[in-house]
Amino acid sequence: MTTNQNASRPFDLLSDSIGKPVLVELKGGFSFRGVLKAFDVHMNIVMENAESWENGSPKTKYGKIILRGDNILLISP
Amino acid sequence: MTTNQNASRPFDLLSDSIGKPVLVELKGGFSFRGVLKAFDVHMNIVMENAESWENGSPKTKYGKIILRGDNILLISP
Amino acid sequence: MTTNQNASRPFDLLSDSIGKPVLVELKGGFSFRGVLKAFDVHMNIVMENAESWENGSPKTKYGKIILRGDNILLISP
Amino acid sequence: MTTNQNASRPFDLLSDSIGKPVLVELKGGFSFRGVLKAFDVHMNIVMENAESWENGSPKTKYGKIILRGDNILLISP
Amino acid sequence: MTTNQNASRPFDLLSDSIGKPVLVELKGGFSFRGVLKAFDVHMNIVMENAESWENGSPKTKYGKIILRGDNILLISP
Amino acid sequence: MTTNQNASRPFDLLSDSIGKPVLVELKGGFSFRGVLKAFDVHMNIVMENAESWENGSPKTKYGKIILRGDNILLISP
Amino acid sequence: MTTNQNASRPFDLLSDSIGKPVLVELKGGFSFRGVLKAFDVHMNIVMENAESWENGSPKTKYGKIILRGDNILLISP
Repeated sequence: MTTNQNASRPFDLLSDSIGKPVLVELKGGFSFRGVLKAFDVHMNIVMENAESWENGSPKTKYGKIILRGDNILLISP
Repeated sequence: MTTNQNASRPFDLLSDSIGKPVLVELKGGFSFRGVLKAFDVHMNIVMENAESWENGSPKTKYGKIILRGDNILLISP
Repeated sequence: MTTNQNASRPFDLLSDSIGKPVLVELKGGFSFRGVLKAFDVHMNIVMENAESWENGSPKTKYGKIILRGDNILLISP
Repeated sequence: MTTNQNASRPFDLLSDSIGKPVLVELKGGFSFRGVLKAFDVHMNIVMENAESWENGSPKTKYGKIILRGDNILLISP
Repeated sequence: MTTNQNASRPFDLLSDSIGKPVLVELKGGFSFRGVLKAFDVHMNIVMENAESWENGSPKTKYGKIILRGDNILLISP
Repeated sequence: MTTNQNASRPFDLLSDSIGKPVLVELKGGFSFRGVLKAFDVHMNIVMENAESWENGSPKTKYGKIILRGDNILLISP
Repeated sequence: MTTNQNASRPFDLLSDSIGKPVLVELKGGFSFRGVLKAFDVHMNIVMENAESWENGSPKTKYGKIILRGDNILLISP
């Protein structure tokens, strides 16, 4: 395989974002903001101080959450 | 693989939550509250004293339930 | 892997429920009640005296059925 | 794995039903009746004298059909 | 595995149908008629003189087509 | 495995179509026309001079595109 | 396997596009424009200066984003 061509693959960018705030947009149209704590190979992620957002405004505050990777559309550090 | 970078991966957080109350939100928009008893690698989970919630109010009481992992959006300890 | 942390994993709970009545809720919103006879690793299950339920009332009586696991939302013993 | 606990697993029930009439309900809400001739590990099945049913009445007669397993909700012998 | 119990498994029926006209119904509700030329393990199939059908009447004529297997509901020789 | 029974399997037909114009219909109902340049085992394909079509008329011109295989309904050389 | 027949397979085209602007159209109907920075075997991609587009006009500016591959319809360099 020659598909991982440089030092900044998708999971490397996730690694670099641990401990930092991220935006996670889901397939269903809403999103979460919080601090990225951890992730695994399925892109399941752990966030702290997570807050769901809908139509541009915060909706629900959570403490820690595990988001299943298969719901995720994008992650922006 | 270097994707599991710290001591608190998603499944570790689940392990730490066994025996404690958790909120499980499903893809379809409703959710379950109960005590996390067990889980497996597919994120199938066993809950006790489980109760389904819809639009902010409890809907149905269950005893023990097995929730299939592929329906899950998030788990919050 | 350290994800199966205790004696009552999801499939163990299924094993303990063989021969007993269970409620199976499906993704499409309706459900089945019957006696759990068997299951496999895909969570395909065999039920006896199965009856489908919709909106809180019984709908169709079946004898034995095989339910494909990928339709299942939850199983409650 | 200790998940196949008894002599009547889902695929065993299918084996026992070969040569007999079965009802196959699909995810989309309609169903097929016919004689089960064969199946494979994906639950793809071959039926003879198959007839599709919709809203409780027969719709289309087929000879032999192969039904892809991933469309199946339940099979009742 | 003891799930392939007889000489006429689903893929055997496909093999026997090569060179013959088949009806392929898709999940989306429409269908194709044509001569089956080939298939693979994903149930991707090659048809010749293929014609799409919708609501009981022919719609579009194609020459050769490759149909992806994951769209298929049933194949009737 | 005895499922690939002849010289013209689905991926062989794709190989024969490299460098030639193809029609690719997608699950969502619209389609692409262009010259097939390459493909891989997931049926991801590269097209050149690609043009999207909707309801029988061209919609958007692209140069080269990569189409993910899991969106594809059929390919017609 | 003889399915990768030439020097310009889908992932090779992605490799050649690193550092260049790309258009990524998603299954849900909207799209992203930005500079391709990296990708992996799941077609998860990293973009820089990413901007989402809807109905022909830019919608939201992002810095870096990770787009999950399973949402992608097409990528055009």
